[in-house]
Amino acid sequence: MAKVSRSYIMMCMLFSILLILGHSVEAGKVRHFKWDVEYIFWSPDCEENVVMGINGQFPGPTIRATAGDTVVIELTNKLHTEGVVIHWHGIRQLGTPWADGTASISQCAINPGETFYYRFKLDKAGTYFYHGHYGMQRSAGLYGSLIVDVAKGEKEPFHYDGELNLLLSDWWHESVHHQEVGLSSNPMRWIGEPQSLLMNGRGQYNCSIAGAHYGNSSSTKCSLRGGEQCAPKILHVLPNKIYRLRIASTTALASLNLAIGNHKLVVVEADGNYVQPFAVDDLDIYSGESYSVLITTNQDPSNNYWVSVGVRGREPKTPQGLTLLNYNTNSPSKLPTSPPPVTPIWNDYAHSKSFTTKILALMGSPQPPKTFHRRITLLNTQNKMNGGYTKWAINNVSLTLPPTPYLGSIKYGLKNAFSLVNPPENFPNEYNVMKPPVNPNTTAGNGVYTLAINSTVDVVLQNANALSENVSEIHPWHLHGHDFWVLGYGDGKFDPTRDERKFNLKNPPLRNTAVIFPYGWTALRFVADNPGVWAFHCHIEPHLHMGMGVVFAEGVRHVNNIPNQALACGLTGKMFTTRAANHTN
Amino acid sequence: MAKVSRSYIMMCMLFSILLILGHSVEAGKVRHFKWDVEYIFWSPDCEENVVMGINGQFPGPTIRATAGDTVVIELTNKLHTEGVVIHWHGIRQLGTPWADGTASISQCAINPGETFYYRFKLDKAGTYFYHGHYGMQRSAGLYGSLIVDVAKGEKEPFHYDGELNLLLSDWWHESVHHQEVGLSSNPMRWIGEPQSLLMNGRGQYNCSIAGAHYGNSSSTKCSLRGGEQCAPKILHVLPNKIYRLRIASTTALASLNLAIGNHKLVVVEADGNYVQPFAVDDLDIYSGESYSVLITTNQDPSNNYWVSVGVRGREPKTPQGLTLLNYNTNSPSKLPTSPPPVTPIWNDYAHSKSFTTKILALMGSPQPPKTFHRRITLLNTQNKMNGGYTKWAINNVSLTLPPTPYLGSIKYGLKNAFSLVNPPENFPNEYNVMKPPVNPNTTAGNGVYTLAINSTVDVVLQNANALSENVSEIHPWHLHGHDFWVLGYGDGKFDPTRDERKFNLKNPPLRNTAVIFPYGWTALRFVADNPGVWAFHCHIEPHLHMGMGVVFAEGVRHVNNIPNQALACGLTGKMFTTRAANHTN
Repeated sequence: MAKVSRSYIMMCMLFSILLILGHSVEAGKVRHFKWDVEYIFWSPDCEENVVMGINGQFPGPTIRATAGDTVVIELTNKLHTEGVVIHWHGIRQLGTPWADGTASISQCAINPGETFYYRFKLDKAGTYFYHGHYGMQRSAGLYGSLIVDVAKGEKEPFHYDGELNLLLSDWWHESVHHQEVGLSSNPMRWIGEPQSLLMNGRGQYNCSIAGAHYGNSSSTKCSLRGGEQCAPKILHVLPNKIYRLRIASTTALASLNLAIGNHKLVVVEADGNYVQPFAVDDLDIYSGESYSVLITTNQDPSNNYWVSVGVRGREPKTPQGLTLLNYNTNSPSKLPTSPPPVTPIWNDYAHSKSFTTKILALMGSPQPPKTFHRRITLLNTQNKMNGGYTKWAINNVSLTLPPTPYLGSIKYGLKNAFSLVNPPENFPNEYNVMKPPVNPNTTAGNGVYTLAINSTVDVVLQNANALSENVSEIHPWHLHGHDFWVLGYGDGKFDPTRDERKFNLKNPPLRNTAVIFPYGWTALRFVADNPGVWAFHCHIEPHLHMGMGVVFAEGVRHVNNIPNQALACGLTGKMFTTRAANHTN
Repeated sequence: MAKVSRSYIMMCMLFSILLILGHSVEAGKVRHFKWDVEYIFWSPDCEENVVMGINGQFPGPTIRATAGDTVVIELTNKLHTEGVVIHWHGIRQLGTPWADGTASISQCAINPGETFYYRFKLDKAGTYFYHGHYGMQRSAGLYGSLIVDVAKGEKEPFHYDGELNLLLSDWWHESVHHQEVGLSSNPMRWIGEPQSLLMNGRGQYNCSIAGAHYGNSSSTKCSLRGGEQCAPKILHVLPNKIYRLRIASTTALASLNLAIGNHKLVVVEADGNYVQPFAVDDLDIYSGESYSVLITTNQDPSNNYWVSVGVRGREPKTPQGLTLLNYNTNSPSKLPTSPPPVTPIWNDYAHSKSFTTKILALMGSPQPPKTFHRRITLLNTQNKMNGGYTKWAINNVSLTLPPTPYLGSIKYGLKNAFSLVNPPENFPNEYNVMKPPVNPNTTAGNGVYTLAINSTVDVVLQNANALSENVSEIHPWHLHGHDFWVLGYGDGKFDPTRDERKFNLKNPPLRNTAVIFPYGWTALRFVADNPGVWAFHCHIEPHLHMGMGVVFAEGVRHVNNIPNQALACGLTGKMFTTRAANHTN
C-alpha cells in the first residue's frame, strides 16, 4: 500500500472524477417540477367553466427537456374528493412502468391531499404530451405539452429556424361527472359533439375570430383584446424562415384536420419518430397522435394566414378552431385576405387514408423483426350489456378496470385481483364486420394478455359495424410503454393469407397511436421488451370509459422498485396492511 | 364421566340453548345491508340533475332497526374517481370509532371500486339519519333516514297510533364540484341560496303544488300525477289518531321551520333523546337536528292540511317546501281550504330562541355532572386567509383536514400527520364579538383537542360578527361520538361569572347538535367517555368546507380492532407498506 505513488493516486482520482462527469453528461439533467392539480374557474372558449388545472393554469405547464434527462414531477392532489394520476403519453417508461400514470394498471390513484413522485427518463426526443388517465379527467382539462429536444451534440435530421407548438383538444360545457353518468346509464346518453375545439387550451364559443368578414358566414366576430383566457395564441413568424410546428391532439373525441392558408405542411415527425418528409396541404390528426411539420414562411409578408382545425370522421357540429399565422411584418390583428381553409368533408375517408398511408419511417429508422411470435386479432364492436347498457368490446369483452393496479397484483401473484382467464386472441370466423352484431350482448372482463418477454407481437385491429346499420367509427388505438410499427391498413375483414403479403416490412412508421378506419383493419408489430403492464386502448375517452381497451403484461417479474405508495389501494394495499399487522401483533 | 346422568346432560344442553337464545335477544339482531353508491340521473325538484344515490335510489334506503341491533353496511364505491364515506349521524359508535364515517378523522375515504364494511351497534332508540362526510357529498344527495325503535319489551314514554317520517334537505342545481371550487376560490364565490327545499328528497322548482289557488301567489301549479320523482310524498292519516312525525334535517345550509295547518306539534324527542313534551304551532330545525312530534288528527276530516317548510335565519330566496297531510276521508289531491302556513319571518330570532329554550330533558333522563374538568371556549369567526380567501375559523384556526385519518395517526403515534401544537382553548379577552374582526387574517390548522378519558368537558360556543358589519349567522354545531347537555344559551359575549350561574343543571336536554344564535353563545357539557377521534363542527356543509370545525381525541390508546383498510391512505398507509416491505425484503 505504502508503495503506491502519489501521482498514481492523483491519476486514479482524476479518472474517477472524469468517469462521474462523463456519466452525468450521459445521464442528462434531473429536472424537478412541483405541480398541484386542482379545479379552477377558467374560460377555455370564452364561457366560464370548472376546469382541471395544474398550478392554477390550463392547460398545464409545458415540460421542455432534453433526451437523456430525468424528470421528477412532485404531483400533489389538491382535488377535494377525487383521486388523480397523470400519464406521460409517448414516453416508454423504460425501467419505470410504475410511473406510466394509468390508474388501475400502473398505480393507485393519488388520494386527495397526497403527493406522488413521478420519476422517469426521457429516452427519446420528440413531441409528446401528458394527460389524466383516471375516469374522464383528460376531458376535464388535465393535460399539457411535453417536448423533448435531441440530446446535446445530436442533430435533428432536418433544419428549422424557429419552433411553434399547438396542443389540440375538444371541449364540452357539461362536466365530465355528468358525462360519465350519462355514458354509464341505461339507456346510455351520449356526450354529443364538443362545444368547441381548443388550440393550446383556447377556443371561441358562440363567436368567431373570423366573424362574418368573408361574407359566407353568419358568425358574430369575437370581441377579444388578446389578454382573455380564450383569446387565440397567435403564431408569430418572420418571413422566409422555416418553422417546426409541433402538433399534438389530446381530444376526448374529435378526429381533427389542420391546415394553414397558403402554406404547405412538410411532415417530418410522428409520435416522437422521424418520418420520410412529405408535403400536404392539410393534416389529419387523431386523438393520441403527435406530428411535427415544417412550414416555410415564403408567402406574401404583407398578409397574415389562417390556421384552422376542423372535425373529421363524425358529422361535425363544432365550429372550426382558428388562430393566425402572423408574419411579423403585419399587425397581429390584421385578418387574412382569404377565408380560413375549409376542412375536408367529414366522411371523405379516401382523403384520410391517403394522408395516413404517406407516413413512412425515415431511412435509417429501426426496422421491424421480419417475423412474429404471436398474432392477436382484436375485433372492435359496439354492444349491449346487462339488458341495455351500451358498451364497446374487444373480441366481445368490454374492459372494466379493477380497483387493484395490475402491476402490483401480477408482481405479487394475487389470485383475486382480476380474471385469470386469458382473453380471446381472435373472433369467430363467421363474424360479419360489415353488419351490426347478430348477438349484440357482451360481458365485462378484466383479463390480461400476457406477452412473452422480448417476443414479437403482431396485433391486427379489426373494425366492424356498430350497433346501427351502416355505421362504423374511427378508433385511434394507443399503446403504452412501446412504439409499434404500422405494417399496413386495409378495408374489410383482415385475411392473413391475402393481406400479410402486403405488409410493409421495409419502412413502416414507428408510432404509439394508430387509427382503424371504418370497416377496416390495421396491422401493428412490436417487441414486448419493456417489463411492465401496459394499456392498449382506443384514445377516444368515452370509448375507453365504455370498455374499449385491453391490457398487456410482459416480464413483470423483472420489475423492481415499484414505490409502495403506487400500490396502497385495493388488494395490494390489503396485502401490505395485513403483512404489517401480522408482524406487529 | 360415565356417572353423569343422561337427564343432567339434557338439562345442561337446554340451559346452554336458553343462554344462547337469551344472549341473542339481548344482543339484538345483526342486520345486513349491501349498498352501492353511484351518481344517478334524478329529478329531486322536477329538474333533472346528477345526484349521489344509493342502490339507484335518492334519498338512500331507510335503515329501520331496533335498539341493540348491530348493522353491517357493505358499502361499495361505484363512483368513477371519487372516494366516499358515510357518517351515521347521532349514532355514538361506542367501541367502533372507526365506523363513524368521517374522512380524514375516522377513516380513509373508500376508493372507487372498493368495498368497506361499516359494522356498529345501535345502542339507543331514536330518529337519526346518515350522510356523506367527505368534501360536500352530503350536498350532492348522499343521505337517508336511520330509525331505531325501542328494544323489544321496552316502551316509548308516549303513545301513538301511527308513524310518519320527513327527512328535510335543500337542493342546488349547480354541482357540488362547482360549489367547492367557488368556495375555495379567491375571491370566494358563495353558493347562494338553494333552488328548492326537499321533503324526503322531493321538491318542486319553478312550480308549486299550491299554485295560485289561494289568490295571493303567482306560482304556477305543478302538473304532477304522483308518480314523478319530484311528486310530494303525501302523509296519509286516519282521523282522530295520534301520529308520531319524525323530522330530521340534513340541509347543506338552510335552517328550517316546519308547520302543519291547523295542527299542533307536540315535541317529544330531540336528536334521539326524549324531551319534556311541549306543544307548538311550528318548529325550528337546524341542519343536523332531528325531532319527533306528536300530532293529533282531530281536525275537520273533510279537509286536507298543508305541511310547509320554509327558511329561517337567512333572507329566504327559496320557496317553501310543501306536502299534504291527507285525512283518508278525502282524496289526496284535494287542496286544503286555507293556504300553507306562513313561515315566521327569517330574522325573528326571538321566535327561534323561544322554541329552542323550550326543549328540556324528560324527567328521568341522564343528568349532567355538576362540575366540569375543563372548559374550552370556541370563538366562531369569519376570516380572510393568504391574501383574500374567505374562511371560517375557531379561535382563529381554520380547520384543514389532513390526508391521514387522525384515528390512525394518533393510535400509531405518527409525528408528521397533523400539527402537534394544541389549538387555543380560548380567545383574547378584548375581542369584540359585536364587530367585524379588527385583524381578519387567520391561518389554517389541523391540531387536536386531546381530552382526558372520562373527564367532563364544557364547551362554550361563542358567536361573533362576520366580516361585514351587522352580520352574524346561525351555526348548528354537531358533535360526533357523544350526546352533550345543552346548559344554556345567551346573547353577547359569554361571561363565566355572570352566565355560569344561569346554567340549567337540572333538566338540560341531551343532544348531538346545538345552535349558536347570532351574536350569542351556547354552553355544552359532555363526558369524554368514548375512546376515539371525533369531529365537532358547524353542520352547514360549506361552513365546514371553509374550516368551521375542531377535532377532539380521547382515549385513543383504548381503541382496538381498527380495520386496516380504514387506514390504508396517507402516512398510516405508508407505515403499513413500509413495514410490510421491511419484512419482505
